Amino acid sequence: MGFLVYSLRQRVSVNQYVARRYYTSDITAKAMVYSDYGQPSQVLRMHSFKLPALTADTVHVKFLASPINPADVNMIQGAYPIKPMMQKLGDSELAVGGNEGVAEVIAVGEQVKDLKVGDQVVMAKSGYGTWRTHAAGLASDFQLLPKIEVPLIQKATMTVNPCTAYRMLKDFVKLNPGDYVIQNGGNSAVGQAVIQIAKAWGLNTINIVRNRPELDQLVNELEEIGATHVITDEELGSHEMRKRIKSWVGDKPPLLGLNCVGGKPATEMARYLGTNGQYVTYGAMSKSPLTLPASLLIFKNISFHGFWVSKWAEIHKPEERYAMFEDVMELMKQGKLREPKWTRVEFEQEEMKKAVDLGISGFSKGKQVVMF
Amino acid sequence: MGFLVYSLRQRVSVNQYVARRYYTSDITAKAMVYSDYGQPSQVLRMHSFKLPALTADTVHVKFLASPINPADVNMIQGAYPIKPMMQKLGDSELAVGGNEGVAEVIAVGEQVKDLKVGDQVVMAKSGYGTWRTHAAGLASDFQLLPKIEVPLIQKATMTVNPCTAYRMLKDFVKLNPGDYVIQNGGNSAVGQAVIQIAKAWGLNTINIVRNRPELDQLVNELEEIGATHVITDEELGSHEMRKRIKSWVGDKPPLLGLNCVGGKPATEMARYLGTNGQYVTYGAMSKSPLTLPASLLIFKNISFHGFWVSKWAEIHKPEERYAMFEDVMELMKQGKLREPKWTRVEFEQEEMKKAVDLGISGFSKGKQVVMF
Repeated sequence: MGFLVYSLRQRVSVNQYVARRYYTSDITAKAMVYSDYGQPSQVLRMHSFKLPALTADTVHVKFLASPINPADVNMIQGAYPIKPMMQKLGDSELAVGGNEGVAEVIAVGEQVKDLKVGDQVVMAKSGYGTWRTHAAGLASDFQLLPKIEVPLIQKATMTVNPCTAYRMLKDFVKLNPGDYVIQNGGNSAVGQAVIQIAKAWGLNTINIVRNRPELDQLVNELEEIGATHVITDEELGSHEMRKRIKSWVGDKPPLLGLNCVGGKPATEMARYLGTNGQYVTYGAMSKSPLTLPASLLIFKNISFHGFWVSKWAEIHKPEERYAMFEDVMELMKQGKLREPKWTRVEFEQEEMKKAVDLGISGFSKGKQVVMF
Repeated sequence: MGFLVYSLRQRVSVNQYVARRYYTSDITAKAMVYSDYGQPSQVLRMHSFKLPALTADTVHVKFLASPINPADVNMIQGAYPIKPMMQKLGDSELAVGGNEGVAEVIAVGEQVKDLKVGDQVVMAKSGYGTWRTHAAGLASDFQLLPKIEVPLIQKATMTVNPCTAYRMLKDFVKLNPGDYVIQNGGNSAVGQAVIQIAKAWGLNTINIVRNRPELDQLVNELEEIGATHVITDEELGSHEMRKRIKSWVGDKPPLLGLNCVGGKPATEMARYLGTNGQYVTYGAMSKSPLTLPASLLIFKNISFHGFWVSKWAEIHKPEERYAMFEDVMELMKQGKLREPKWTRVEFEQEEMKKAVDLGISGFSKGKQVVMF
């Protein structure tokens, strides 16, 4: 007998021991896939395929919950700087929609050290695809979650919004209790996470929201989760507001500004930062660029940065990401970082398409989360 | 005899030893002064006064050469974030024009340790005033120059433009020989210093200039002082230019961009920076703000800073500034950083006013330098 046959036999026997049931996987997986960029409702379709057999360095996971995020749509449209990973799913090379989600490990190859059956994981990187019942991937495609008891929805929606808020509050300025942070998009998912994490860390927030008919209700809601002050973009540039903000911050103006809006109100917000302030842009909801008078750069020495949590995850070690998850999940467990508003989406082709369209329209009620 | 008389006699005798001639100063000083903000030609006037007597902690200096810079005009107009220092000059409290210049120490009080007669100095800070024949100030108002033989004009015009170039090339990105830097305003005083210091350090520069009738001549001049490439703002956004720049930089796009222009070409320049690039604004010649698409911030992770050499000098130790002067003057001595084009201005009221007006118009031939 030659080497090939011997090693093949050995491999079979080890795999049978470690993950007997899956070596010749009978699992039929389903995934929302696409093979061309385009409008999601046109290019997305549900695809069924046999899950590949387990190999020494792979794991099988079963997805539990995956949200529909704006970046997922951009990726399907081909308008996102990260390209989806093409995967052989049955007979076809396909991309799978979705980037965030939580899954449970259901089988591990014999060489896999860092994961075991029953572990819960999130994706190591963007582009793999999370709108799927199962995945067979390398252990390094996944990142272990700490074993801290928090609701599934929290785990499924943690890696984008709360982690963006956490890093922006932590990485740009050394902040001390009592310091002020100013942000726009105060009612966005990241904005709400900023409010809550800041509050938990003893920081004050000035939160800018768009003016609206039921402003009082929104202000109450944001104050209820810990906002120190809530103001509207329309008030922002007024003399009166300058005086009010001055009365709040005294001689300690905010040294951190967080922007997901862009356009004129984003410039106005920059004017409230103190000398040497740091201004971080993580979104552009108004689709308008950020316009900076040179004086803010030169004379006030304000620096303008961007933050992108996908890139952060890519260039930092899994241990650092794990430590962040521990902090964030601990805040969730303590009730300091609440579950986002969400609606359940069934994992079924037409409902998924409808949900993605609703996501694009911006009229979805809270975050749409696919439950498998 | 009481204590007062004794100590007065002692003080006189020490002063007579250290700086005999100046204790009861007979020097009549002249300064271009103003007592109100306004148009320089309206508010500036020549003022004569007796130099105050030397005291233990003061020095007398005699100015040698002081340039007329744009920021000097802004300060007189009240449009500069640093206010001039009001000084008792004879019977009046006045501000003195000018912020840059080189002076020689002609007398030192007995408690002054770091300066001696014959030393050459520049100003420690902006706002003191350098359009004057003499000054009597605290030793800490002045900063000692290294004793490196370079022409007077170089010393008189070093602290703003060459030092701005030096710091921007040094403080924002770790650059290695062969790396590219991109800048606009390539023909400005700072721009030319950037070209020369970069060349001396083995760095390549892409220099953007405004298109003009005699472009070839300018390109030749800039290449002659060390510019790697010179392009025009009009070419900047073209497909052809993108290809050319790509062919120059290969897979190492510039990680440092220097902007003194603003407006659309400044945004275009930012697009040439590589991922994680640093973009530094130190001027706004076009008077247009800098407009930043969010993608440059978020997805390319480019950070936008300002640089202001006056602030740098204010917050750094004299030793650090001295070390910079040593480096810069050594480059001057070696012929690697050339004397700027300049024209001589006599220190006489009407000629000074004319020179300041010419400076505002932007039509002066080279830097205008007052020689005393």
